Amino acid sequence: MRALREAIRSGRLAPDTRLPPYRTLANDLAIARNTVAGAYAELVEEGWLTARQGSGTRVARRATPLDPGQSRGPARPTRHRVTHDLMPTSPDAAAFPRADWAASARRALAAAPNDAFGVGDSRGRRELRHALTEYLARARGVRTDPDRIIICAGYAHALRLLCQVLQGPMAVESYGLAFHRSLIAGAGLDTVPLTVDAHGARTDELTATGADSVLLTPAHQFPTGGPLHPERRTAVIDWARATGGLLLEDDYDGEFRYDREPVGAVQGLDPDRVAYLGSTSKSLSPALRLGWMVLPGHLADRVAEAKGEREMWTGVVDQLTLADFINCGAYDRHLRRMRKIYRRRRDHLTATLAERAPHIAVTGIAAGLHAVLELPEGTEQAALRAARRQGLALEGLHPFRHPHSTLPPRDGLVIGYGTPPEHAFTAALDALCLALPDPPQDEHPEPTAPRRRPRRS
Amino acid sequence: MRALREAIRSGRLAPDTRLPPYRTLANDLAIARNTVAGAYAELVEEGWLTARQGSGTRVARRATPLDPGQSRGPARPTRHRVTHDLMPTSPDAAAFPRADWAASARRALAAAPNDAFGVGDSRGRRELRHALTEYLARARGVRTDPDRIIICAGYAHALRLLCQVLQGPMAVESYGLAFHRSLIAGAGLDTVPLTVDAHGARTDELTATGADSVLLTPAHQFPTGGPLHPERRTAVIDWARATGGLLLEDDYDGEFRYDREPVGAVQGLDPDRVAYLGSTSKSLSPALRLGWMVLPGHLADRVAEAKGEREMWTGVVDQLTLADFINCGAYDRHLRRMRKIYRRRRDHLTATLAERAPHIAVTGIAAGLHAVLELPEGTEQAALRAARRQGLALEGLHPFRHPHSTLPPRDGLVIGYGTPPEHAFTAALDALCLALPDPPQDEHPEPTAPRRRPRRS
Repeated sequence: MRALREAIRSGRLAPDTRLPPYRTLANDLAIARNTVAGAYAELVEEGWLTARQGSGTRVARRATPLDPGQSRGPARPTRHRVTHDLMPTSPDAAAFPRADWAASARRALAAAPNDAFGVGDSRGRRELRHALTEYLARARGVRTDPDRIIICAGYAHALRLLCQVLQGPMAVESYGLAFHRSLIAGAGLDTVPLTVDAHGARTDELTATGADSVLLTPAHQFPTGGPLHPERRTAVIDWARATGGLLLEDDYDGEFRYDREPVGAVQGLDPDRVAYLGSTSKSLSPALRLGWMVLPGHLADRVAEAKGEREMWTGVVDQLTLADFINCGAYDRHLRRMRKIYRRRRDHLTATLAERAPHIAVTGIAAGLHAVLELPEGTEQAALRAARRQGLALEGLHPFRHPHSTLPPRDGLVIGYGTPPEHAFTAALDALCLALPDPPQDEHPEPTAPRRRPRRS
Repeated sequence: MRALREAIRSGRLAPDTRLPPYRTLANDLAIARNTVAGAYAELVEEGWLTARQGSGTRVARRATPLDPGQSRGPARPTRHRVTHDLMPTSPDAAAFPRADWAASARRALAAAPNDAFGVGDSRGRRELRHALTEYLARARGVRTDPDRIIICAGYAHALRLLCQVLQGPMAVESYGLAFHRSLIAGAGLDTVPLTVDAHGARTDELTATGADSVLLTPAHQFPTGGPLHPERRTAVIDWARATGGLLLEDDYDGEFRYDREPVGAVQGLDPDRVAYLGSTSKSLSPALRLGWMVLPGHLADRVAEAKGEREMWTGVVDQLTLADFINCGAYDRHLRRMRKIYRRRRDHLTATLAERAPHIAVTGIAAGLHAVLELPEGTEQAALRAARRQGLALEGLHPFRHPHSTLPPRDGLVIGYGTPPEHAFTAALDALCLALPDPPQDEHPEPTAPRRRPRRS
């Protein structure tokens, strides 16, 4: 009878085809009459067949075959084939700690109370909020308690939720992810750019913006790469206290500092003025979709309410697994391992450029998963085209610039040295060097050293 | 130095307190000067201390202690203590197949390609879309291919995404979840009720509604409990073809039919007119946050785009684990096991009521995780109050009624017999019987049998 259903579905039995009476078919196939009668009845009930007095059982007109022509699959812009991936913001996917994660999942599943598999609290599992309270205090200087933490599906989800409860314009860094700006704008909030210089965002511009909140990347400005100057860290808290404003602290790669201990989160200075945002997207994998907000008490209830009455987003197994992964020390171990790998890659990048493209400066501190290469004015587009010809995926600096920024656009490349797997990194660097613009040619060469911008790495 | 930081954070060292010069402190504590100097510098950088020429190193004014009074924790309405849980829509949380899920997670993590841990496709992992294509065809008569499936964080997420790409009013069943109606309304679409009778939604009312889409629960009307009549299944497809409309098929508990093989999905009749919506929320756990949409070709791209350029919601480990869980047969095994358990509970419920409250009818087919008890007119509120006094959580029928429905309100209780753990079910039924209204007392008893409504179970 499965064959009959298949024949109808696939269109092999055309609509209106009259089927033999079930007795006849049962005799022909030498199977029980009840079986055939049951199958007919079932197919009528499902709408595949129609049975009318006097006209017998027919294939219904509505059973259309699946048209393969309408299934177009993912719509992707046509791209050059990518051989080398230096796109920023991703950690090394090949380094995901599969075995340790599976071990934590097994332990977490075994230890979970039954209610973990029922309807969840929209703040997220308590086990994870406890683990994060301890971890963030220790690793990032965050001061909180589990009731002020809300688990979410990553940084973008956190930003969406905050935008639902915030009002008024939000000041943002003049360089940042366009996706985040459009997400804020999509929630109905204007974004106002703050100039980014070598010391991070110009917090002295905050008051003039009239903004009610400000989104910063204090540990490691994204993408330009500097830390927020200590005086500006305190200035933004002073501003928040004076105006009732809120700092949204995007601590996207705060664990990855290679030259010293990471600078603690600004949140620790005043937990009532800062919404601290973190996730596993850089530390483990962007595919986990696990993030957290550490909120002032007065915001925690409102954001939890905006998230929903019950947990609708983040899976409980991942939440419990991450709690175990933190508590058993696997998270620290993984971060130590990745810090070594990324530091080596950054050193490799800067050494390669110093040797083969000394006219290109690497800006920013030794931290994170990306570096910005400063390019001579007007050369960014040509470098991106050259990269595409090399099969090299990377980003230019222009798309990160806030469209209302009064700063002149800077030319540069944002290199995600965390992205490729270990074995592919050297080849990616080779392709990068081929894509970089040549050193400026002096028409009348003089016996001076080549121009080099100051390097801070 | 950790102690120093802690003393400042906790407020034990008051703002403006002058710290001893680092040399002095190093001598006092008998630790290296460099260690103390480094700690001071770090605390200045983080904003805990200020260091000014001439005034020494002081505790900064901005380092406020965490005020425990502002952390209010989850705001929950005050409720009677819940001893017995018969709230509808949840499966038995205690029956989650932990060991099998952990085994699938381990296999899935070991087998995943590296790119699984990179940035994901917003349609979801291909492994899962393949597994679902095969499973849904076999178990639910769904006809599709992996490119038409989009993975999401559950049914509500699917509905949100569809509402983003749909326009015009949406017809809904006159009884349904208020949360879903408000979700549709929140997306800017009006909902228009279709009368629900013993044969499901009155599809003959569709044309008059002027709706562009219709949301139905064809396998098992939620909550009243009937299946959509075969003629109405075909009628809704005819309507969709004639008007260019779309059926949203909410197949929330389609696998749980106890008296016969489940009726296949309406989607199989015409995959180009139906958006089929399913999830693991009833079959496994609402805490997994895993759902899927099976879409007409022309909608798949638009919904994927609405979901985002990359996967921002559903964790890859759960997706790969579910694919393995389906492919290895564990999902079918779990469903067989749960069908037995839920069927036994439903039989237990109907037998208990037949014996102890024969005046209360159980409506709907033998399916799913819930049953509706019909109550005499005007007794629902009293029954709910009586249930609360028994420490029994359940729902009345009134909140499910569409506010614009022209049907007279029905009194009833929606009983989630799937919710409690096995050992607690009998006690929950006992509490339920105590909460039910007494049989109608006839002032002049006559020698007829007690009034009994027809029972379809």
